Order: sequence, then C-alpha cells, then structure tokens
Amino acid sequence: MRISELSSRSGVPVATIKYYLRERLLAPGTKTGPNQADYGEEHLHRLRLVRALTEVGGLSIATAREVVTAIEDQKRSMHEVLGVAHGALAPPTNERSGRSAAQAQVDDFLDELGWALSDDSPARNELASALATLWNLGWRVDAHVFERYAHLAHELASWEFERTPMDRQREEVVEAVVVGTVVFEKALVALRRLAHESHSAALFSPPPPNA
Amino acid sequence: MRISELSSRSGVPVATIKYYLRERLLAPGTKTGPNQADYGEEHLHRLRLVRALTEVGGLSIATAREVVTAIEDQKRSMHEVLGVAHGALAPPTNERSGRSAAQAQVDDFLDELGWALSDDSPARNELASALATLWNLGWRVDAHVFERYAHLAHELASWEFERTPMDRQREEVVEAVVVGTVVFEKALVALRRLAHESHSAALFSPPPPNA
Repeated sequence: MRISELSSRSGVPVATIKYYLRERLLAPGTKTGPNQADYGEEHLHRLRLVRALTEVGGLSIATAREVVTAIEDQKRSMHEVLGVAHGALAPPTNERSGRSAAQAQVDDFLDELGWALSDDSPARNELASALATLWNLGWRVDAHVFERYAHLAHELASWEFERTPMDRQREEVVEAVVVGTVVFEKALVALRRLAHESHSAALFSPPPPNA
Repeated sequence: MRISELSSRSGVPVATIKYYLRERLLAPGTKTGPNQADYGEEHLHRLRLVRALTEVGGLSIATAREVVTAIEDQKRSMHEVLGVAHGALAPPTNERSGRSAAQAQVDDFLDELGWALSDDSPARNELASALATLWNLGWRVDAHVFERYAHLAHELASWEFERTPMDRQREEVVEAVVVGTVVFEKALVALRRLAHESHSAALFSPPPPNA
C-alpha cells in the first residue's frame, strides 16, 4: 500500500509516518519509484505498536526505538527484550533523602520473596522510592507494607504468562508480553481507581434521603 | 521553625519552598519580623505531601494545588476529595479511532460489575483507551478481557479501605486515601513488573550449564 493508505488505515498522519521512518522506528518500504514506496501489513502493525508504546506507555521516540530494536533483534532472548521494555518504562531514577535505607529494605524484602530478579531491575528503584515517600510522610512502615501487593502481583503475573500464546512466532510473543505490560498496567491502575471510587461512594457518600 | 530549618528537615530547597508559598500550595507562616516567618510541623507535613503528589504522582503544581485545596475544604465530603484526586491523576483525554465503541463496551462492562461509579469518572476513559489500543494492535477481545483485573482491583480496594484508619481527623483520613492511591499504585505497578521479570527469567532464560 502507499503511504497515504498506511496513514488512513492507521489513523497516523503522513507527516508522523515520515518522521517515524526518519527516526528508524519503522522500516523503509519497498521502493516503487523515485518518490514512492510500498508498505505492507507489517508496517501497519509496527505503526500501531509504536503508537501504543508512545501514547499509552508514554515512551519518548528514542526509548520506543530501543524497545522496537530489541524486539527485532533475533539474538536477544525474550527475557532480555522484556528487560529493555521495563527499563524504557521506568522513569529516570530520582535520588532523594532516605533512599538508600529504603533501597536496602526493598532489596531484602524482594530477596525474601525468592523471585528471580536481576540486581539492577529499574522497578526496584521505583518500589524504594514509594517506601521513601511513605517515610517522608511520616508513615512508620517497613517494606512489608507491600507484601499483599507482591503476592497479588505474583498471582497475576503467573496467570498472565499462562495465557500468553507461546506457540506463535518469536516477534508476536515478545510483542504480546510488551503490550501486556504497558496496556494491562494502565487497565489495572484504572480499575483500581474505579474500585476505590466505588468503595468510597459506599463509605463516604451521604445516603439518599428517605422517601 | 525558620524557613531554613523547614528546608533542611524536608530536603526541599528554600527557593522551592518560596515558590510553593507564592503558588499557595503551602499556607504562609506566622510573621515574626519584616522578612521572617515561623513555620510549624503542619508546614513540614504539607511540604512532604506536595512532594509526594508532584514527584511520585507526577502532578503539575496547578493540579497538586487543586488536590491540596480539596483536602483542606471542610465542606467537601471524602468522596468528593477522592474524586478530585482521581481527576488530577488522570492524563488528559486523548481521542482516537475506535474510542467511542471501546467506551460503550467499557461502560457496559462496568455496569455489569455493579460498582457505584459516576458517569464521568476519568478512569473510564483510561480503560476505554486501553481497550482501543488492543483493538488497534489487532487483538480480537472485548471489555471482558479486563475481568480478572477488575475482580483483583475490587478485592484489593476492599482490603485497602478496611485498613485505612477512619477514626483519625478528617484531613488525615483524606490524606491517607490520596497517598494510598498515588504511592501504592506506583508500588503495585513496580511489583507487577518485578513479578513479570521473575516469571520471564524462569520461562525464557537459558538454564545454567550443568557442572
């Protein structure tokens, strides 16, 4: 298909597609003339993945390219690609007071859980930052305050990995895992907020006046 | 305490504290001289809350002020304050193709759940946007793809509300709910990523070579 059709089918403006091509987020099409190229279904699909990463995941163009490149790199294991995606999704580390003590507690807590984690997983920092924030707000808690969340996350991840179609092509599996991380994370957060709203309505809303 | 002590105890630079004072994120101290004011523990606490909202929650100064103002407004019910916090945390709505169909499906799904939700909860949009993204990526799913996440979020919210100390002062309870939303949301997301890493290591990593 021509770039105009790629644009109308994806809903992404032609100028943006050209930008993605220049930034190597999208492979070039097959040249059909001096100023024309032909694009296939794989371009359409890649375009949608890039939109999911940048719009839903909030990734910059540079980090989206890292993830896309990792997905394409046949030499990388699934596990490595997932690591790249997690690294891209983590906000830049933000040192602050109480951080190193929180980091040590979080590391001990994660050790106790017995999960197979690398020492430099970016999510370790995020969890430590959450604990340090609670301390700064005067909460007298240790890392075990996250225990229930950890068990729940583990149960959820088991279920999520079970239903990932592992019999498909490598690229499809990797994409399913990355999209699952980004999109279902947003969904989980949205649903937790909705559940809070519903509980809050039940607890704090004035009861309707009696007829 | 003087502003310098407020700064050293909170770890927030004096210039930033002055900025928060100008932006009314922090109430003025008690004047003790032409260029001096006295600040109390409540200022320190508020400063930490503002940092939690802006650094962990990623809120802008303007939206953090909305949340802080709502917490202080005695006329607002807890439920309303939580609504303000959720509205502030939601990213701006981002219309895209397939959105209205996704929205309708999500609304039906949430109706089925029977939760007490307002029609304009911002998290409805986020959930619809997640579903629309899956569709754009070619996933043939309906809103029930989120069913397990919904049950899990509901179970989690029940537990979270049960352990919120409701016997404290209004401002403390509201703050606990808002901080709980922001900080534990980050913790939950971080733990889900860590659980994914652990499962991915077990599934995709090459086994260690035999000795």
